[in-house]
Amino acid sequence: SIDAKRLWSDLMETARIGGTAKGGIRRLTLGEEDRRVRDWFRAECESLGCSVHVDEVGNMFAIRPGRNNALPPIAMGSHLDTQPTGGKFDGVLGVLAGLECLRTLHAADYETHAPVMLVNWTNEEGSRFAPAMLGSGVHAGVFDRTYADTRKDGEGVSFAEAIEAISYRGEVGIGSTPIGAMFELHIEQGPILEAEGDTIGVVTGVQGMRWYDVEITGRESHAGSTPMAMRRDALPAAAALVLAVQAAARACPGAVATVGTIAVHPGSRNVIPGAASLSVDLRHPDAGALDGTEAAIEQALAAICAEHGVTGTLTRIWDSPPVPFDPGCIASVRDAAGSLGYRMRDIVSGAGHDAAYIARIAPTAMIFVPCAGGLSHNEAEDASFEDCGAGAQVLLQAVLDYDRR
Amino acid sequence: SIDAKRLWSDLMETARIGGTAKGGIRRLTLGEEDRRVRDWFRAECESLGCSVHVDEVGNMFAIRPGRNNALPPIAMGSHLDTQPTGGKFDGVLGVLAGLECLRTLHAADYETHAPVMLVNWTNEEGSRFAPAMLGSGVHAGVFDRTYADTRKDGEGVSFAEAIEAISYRGEVGIGSTPIGAMFELHIEQGPILEAEGDTIGVVTGVQGMRWYDVEITGRESHAGSTPMAMRRDALPAAAALVLAVQAAARACPGAVATVGTIAVHPGSRNVIPGAASLSVDLRHPDAGALDGTEAAIEQALAAICAEHGVTGTLTRIWDSPPVPFDPGCIASVRDAAGSLGYRMRDIVSGAGHDAAYIARIAPTAMIFVPCAGGLSHNEAEDASFEDCGAGAQVLLQAVLDYDRR
Ligand SMILES: NC(=O)NCCC(=O)O
Ligand SMILES: NC(=O)NCCC(=O)O
Repeated sequence: SIDAKRLWSDLMETARIGGTAKGGIRRLTLGEEDRRVRDWFRAECESLGCSVHVDEVGNMFAIRPGRNNALPPIAMGSHLDTQPTGGKFDGVLGVLAGLECLRTLHAADYETHAPVMLVNWTNEEGSRFAPAMLGSGVHAGVFDRTYADTRKDGEGVSFAEAIEAISYRGEVGIGSTPIGAMFELHIEQGPILEAEGDTIGVVTGVQGMRWYDVEITGRESHAGSTPMAMRRDALPAAAALVLAVQAAARACPGAVATVGTIAVHPGSRNVIPGAASLSVDLRHPDAGALDGTEAAIEQALAAICAEHGVTGTLTRIWDSPPVPFDPGCIASVRDAAGSLGYRMRDIVSGAGHDAAYIARIAPTAMIFVPCAGGLSHNEAEDASFEDCGAGAQVLLQAVLDYDRR
Repeated sequence: SIDAKRLWSDLMETARIGGTAKGGIRRLTLGEEDRRVRDWFRAECESLGCSVHVDEVGNMFAIRPGRNNALPPIAMGSHLDTQPTGGKFDGVLGVLAGLECLRTLHAADYETHAPVMLVNWTNEEGSRFAPAMLGSGVHAGVFDRTYADTRKDGEGVSFAEAIEAISYRGEVGIGSTPIGAMFELHIEQGPILEAEGDTIGVVTGVQGMRWYDVEITGRESHAGSTPMAMRRDALPAAAALVLAVQAAARACPGAVATVGTIAVHPGSRNVIPGAASLSVDLRHPDAGALDGTEAAIEQALAAICAEHGVTGTLTRIWDSPPVPFDPGCIASVRDAAGSLGYRMRDIVSGAGHDAAYIARIAPTAMIFVPCAGGLSHNEAEDASFEDCGAGAQVLLQAVLDYDRR
């Protein structure tokens, strides 16, 4: 059985890499802090006798051989990158719990049937480089290497430049590392498990998510001498769209929608904005509901542009359809949690995860543990020592259960 | 009489300092381009035999002696800084037309009664460092040097650091340069003169203007797993305020209001914004109307915060009250325009100008010329060769008329 204290100490030690004054982590993908945590991860895995391979987009695969190494490895893992004001558990828990499983197998000299593999996926957050789950998406064949390389951050730095800068462009070919199955442990990032007093969420799938870029173009002019009636102000139009996005989500039960970024040009107190750029994040477990809400937002944008005398475009830059996980993997999670006596429930993930892309190429499932107040993507994100340990234990049992079948 | 071609060639030559691809100028106050245009200005004035003095906030005074140098100088001038995406005429016209007047007096060996002075005021735009009209405000005693020095730009660089960086901290004491009267030529920056076919605006005053900072605080959380009902999203609240600011201005005849900047924190596509910052620019010729509109915006903010479950503050960071210009100076402008046969009308300035602060310490007036489509604070800002020449001619006549009285 896993050592919850050792897991917790790994969580707290790595939280210092990019640690913030408010107790969170700022470890943007492919930045200097990401390099440091990657170096640490590699060293720890190698000290357990695993061989660590890095692919062309920086995904890191640590392989522990089994009895039959012709079998594709059973994978665990998640991501070590964070949001700009991220917490200590989002992604990190899944990787470090996997590491704790490897440590446990190593200490017990346990030999699995198939090899066991721990993966750190590149750019899961999608905050520095859109879209999210980029590394796992490339591995699953959803995106190609050129697409990944040409993503740009807010400063115009490309993914290719960033990965070269931290020397994490590996030699392993895209998608060439086989995966027999994948189990990802993650904090829920929402309020359900905590509210219902459950320790384990048996994740049956991931809701669909779409990202959009909105550009609104008006006309820059003087804030003092341009009469209200002569303005073509891009910002009130953008503001009306922000409210329309909220309204569209509220009108569709189960939908959530967020405008997370907004910028106006030229951004001067006494200049009427001539342009505004926004992002939209829209999610729902059902693709049809996404279509309907997307259409409602498009219609709202057209009406707003006409009313405000501006022009606008809505471009869908990412579409991750709803994902059902594999019944066999789900059963392994449910059996593991049951045999350990944890209170559990089935749950659909509101957040995207690497497992959602890996599910396209291998049987996959996820394990959720509660986080305080359902809060995530916030430096105050918190999960209990007990729940982290419980999650890691379920992860190990599920992997061993799957390996036995 | 002035040489309109020489004036136009100065306008086009200096427009290259910070010139943009779209035909405008980006010459942020106290930046490298500002240093270059200041060096040019000093050299041109000195070549006409003027002595050039720089005060502690970088205001530049070029003095041409008169018969009686015990008299305070009659000032012309405006500013050479621009908006981030500014035009070729805003401010620059008033300085270069003053230079053309000095050239004309020099060529004609004309001796005025009082000295004549040309001023380049620091940081009129207020875009890099808020508030606007900072250099003239310091000269007029509205702000002290410490206040100016501690203003910060968007990158956190202080006014003090910026002025030292371009070596334009002069030795002349704040406010120690006397001004007998001031005449400022400027493009209208609004649509009235063009619409009515007038060449000259006799500016009788400047409307009141107030700037505010708004901070809205909600709670960062995950865009995918936080139900709509559990959100404390700062951006929809900010968006509602943008629309409320517009509505408040529309509800008060003669008012204009603009949100020119907006930023959200942390600014990530899949994070519900935990904070939003906005600027508000509010103007009206009547102080009572400003009070009423300000109160309406404050009430709207309180209601919006309650509705969105966020907190918000509105801080007035600048208040420039309505300014009536001096009847004597206005008469000099009107007489000059009349004797030259230009179509003219009285006009109240919608934009703020250095003359608005200098009016507190000396008799002051302004001359407007039309600009194409009333467009300003835009790279496409334009004014005709004829109108620029007419404005410079009226400026010279008004100064000489005032000197004779
Ligand atoms: N788990 C997580 O926060 N992933 C980032 C992608 C998303 O926005 O859902
Ligand atoms: N003239 C001018 O554009 N001044 C800048 C200050 C203002 O916003 O009015």
